[in-house]
Amino acid sequence: MGIITLLTDFGVKDPYVGVMKGVILGIDPGARVIDMTHEVEPQDMREAAFLIDDYWRHFPPGTVHVAVVDPTVGSARRPLIVSAKGHHFVGPDNGVFTLLADNVPDIHVIENRNFMLFPVSSTFHGRDVFSPAAARLSRGYSPQAFGRRITDPVLLSDIHPVIEGRTLKGSVVRFDRFGNAITNIKGHALRYFAGEGPFEIRMGKHVFAAIGKTYCEGGLACLEGSSGYLEFGVFKGDFRRETGTGKGDPVTVTLP
Amino acid sequence: MGIITLLTDFGVKDPYVGVMKGVILGIDPGARVIDMTHEVEPQDMREAAFLIDDYWRHFPPGTVHVAVVDPTVGSARRPLIVSAKGHHFVGPDNGVFTLLADNVPDIHVIENRNFMLFPVSSTFHGRDVFSPAAARLSRGYSPQAFGRRITDPVLLSDIHPVIEGRTLKGSVVRFDRFGNAITNIKGHALRYFAGEGPFEIRMGKHVFAAIGKTYCEGGLACLEGSSGYLEFGVFKGDFRRETGTGKGDPVTVTLP
Amino acid sequence: MGIITLLTDFGVKDPYVGVMKGVILGIDPGARVIDMTHEVEPQDMREAAFLIDDYWRHFPPGTVHVAVVDPTVGSARRPLIVSAKGHHFVGPDNGVFTLLADNVPDIHVIENRNFMLFPVSSTFHGRDVFSPAAARLSRGYSPQAFGRRITDPVLLSDIHPVIEGRTLKGSVVRFDRFGNAITNIKGHALRYFAGEGPFEIRMGKHVFAAIGKTYCEGGLACLEGSSGYLEFGVFKGDFRRETGTGKGDPVTVTLP
Repeated sequence: MGIITLLTDFGVKDPYVGVMKGVILGIDPGARVIDMTHEVEPQDMREAAFLIDDYWRHFPPGTVHVAVVDPTVGSARRPLIVSAKGHHFVGPDNGVFTLLADNVPDIHVIENRNFMLFPVSSTFHGRDVFSPAAARLSRGYSPQAFGRRITDPVLLSDIHPVIEGRTLKGSVVRFDRFGNAITNIKGHALRYFAGEGPFEIRMGKHVFAAIGKTYCEGGLACLEGSSGYLEFGVFKGDFRRETGTGKGDPVTVTLP
Repeated sequence: MGIITLLTDFGVKDPYVGVMKGVILGIDPGARVIDMTHEVEPQDMREAAFLIDDYWRHFPPGTVHVAVVDPTVGSARRPLIVSAKGHHFVGPDNGVFTLLADNVPDIHVIENRNFMLFPVSSTFHGRDVFSPAAARLSRGYSPQAFGRRITDPVLLSDIHPVIEGRTLKGSVVRFDRFGNAITNIKGHALRYFAGEGPFEIRMGKHVFAAIGKTYCEGGLACLEGSSGYLEFGVFKGDFRRETGTGKGDPVTVTLP
Repeated sequence: MGIITLLTDFGVKDPYVGVMKGVILGIDPGARVIDMTHEVEPQDMREAAFLIDDYWRHFPPGTVHVAVVDPTVGSARRPLIVSAKGHHFVGPDNGVFTLLADNVPDIHVIENRNFMLFPVSSTFHGRDVFSPAAARLSRGYSPQAFGRRITDPVLLSDIHPVIEGRTLKGSVVRFDRFGNAITNIKGHALRYFAGEGPFEIRMGKHVFAAIGKTYCEGGLACLEGSSGYLEFGVFKGDFRRETGTGKGDPVTVTLP
């Protein structure tokens, strides 16, 4: 009984996600299909990349993770299977799997037409290409069976924070449902950068000299979120709305 | 391990859908329950009819499809099992299954009180009537066991496009999450109507002389969507909002 | 194949719920995980308590019900397993299980660190504490294995209606997706209070002298909802918006 996770920007109003599940169960009747989110901001590959990085480790090896954030569906962009640490990732070659690069993944293009629905539409590869591939991987097919191996996947730039002198420069990657702003700066990266010494975290006009533990401490807070990234929030409030913060806004850690 | 799909206008805020799943699993512990959508516009049977038509073929035969868009629950409207092409459809007799009529379905009324929860409420037949029926169908019960066969189901009118002289007249059926307007005109119906010759598609004040392939071509586009119907959209934009189009708005294909 | 239900205020935009499912399936690969709702109003324990009371009976005995509405996660509040009528309930000790008190539940604290993820974060006990506990309960572990038994769980006050003279005083507990206002007054409690005689239900400036059957009767209606509580709605409309009713607003039943 394989596990297949789904991440898309399809929303849950339309039956697209359900159709993908129908295709999957038609090929692998024993698959357990788990929705991760279908509310990725439309066509935001960077948000998708960070979300995937957040969750895949919490699933058992052998899990197949499908990610369909695919603004150029129907163009020549390649459909991929990215395999790392015993997990498979299925989706378009547009950078959604950038954060897996550290795991030295094995990457194959999905080319075998026998493993796609017929005909393949130009608008819904989630149904016609990615779901059939995921279901076959879940049943034990080898990635090699789908097509040639490649080593030049599209990678997003500006994904990791950078160090400039005594400043670590990152940015806001996404907002969660409560309006907390989640950055691309890992807590342990900050500790490695700052060592035992003092530091100053700056996000818009707000300055923090320490990392809090939980949101129940009152007022604005900067803390290390459940996935290890620095995040900003406000107790029982909506940080995004209250501060006007936007996606991509800079976050800096400065040493005195 | 049977498959049961659910379509409702209940939304996902309330526990109604989860309760239906509890009832189903209590009767058929092996059932796999798949959410198609719970965001049908409240009480819009026409939208539901087109959504069902979109997805049922993507599931394996034997699947039971439950549809609860049921504004007259508690009245005398009949609960139905509609069987076609090896699939079963369970829901109220109010037209939601209109588009299955072409498949010459076998239709039974759910009358057997032993197959309902006790007491049957007047507000939630999804829980009390439809879920228990779906779970029993999934376990292999025959539709005849539920009640008498009928041949006069409620059918929605105005569901198919019509030809008037040199014009094919259809309308907007629903909007997807991206704001694309989906019509009731199938791409192949247009091609059958227009033959090899030129045609003009009119939607509001917008005119199209051809059907595009994907939304990445830029600007407003008219294309054949993933389910075969003509749809209108705008690259990285929201057609509904940008054009003020509404559900039911006419769409015409005219020959010169 | 155990059943585990999930109720949270996490929404479905973030991958938190999916992560909980990954943790669950890693421990109990056969578990069936059912979403009840993830749209509880953030940090509203009273709403959660009434929702849980609504659905748990519709699942088979042995089901494990997880509830994560947890504003003080990371503080000293205890994680609990509440066992009643053959069901297990897993969540924080903050009152979300208040309505189970009538069933004389057996309550244990989750203290055994071997049954938690390592390290336990201060922000996401849904993943680190509650999901691992639920998966182990689903596999058959006894609640005693998790920690000591307690008899002093946090209970919400103001949860039941009260009788003052000839008036039964309740309030609005939550709104469903259609904007119907659901109260904490059970239909049978009203009948017990009023007996065979006449009564007057007052909700804001609206007065009702009887309980209707369904919303298709037209106009404003007061009826006994599918879960047995009095609710107020308007046929094909949104009672909340149209009347300006708010959560906690009083609802009274008065005898002449």
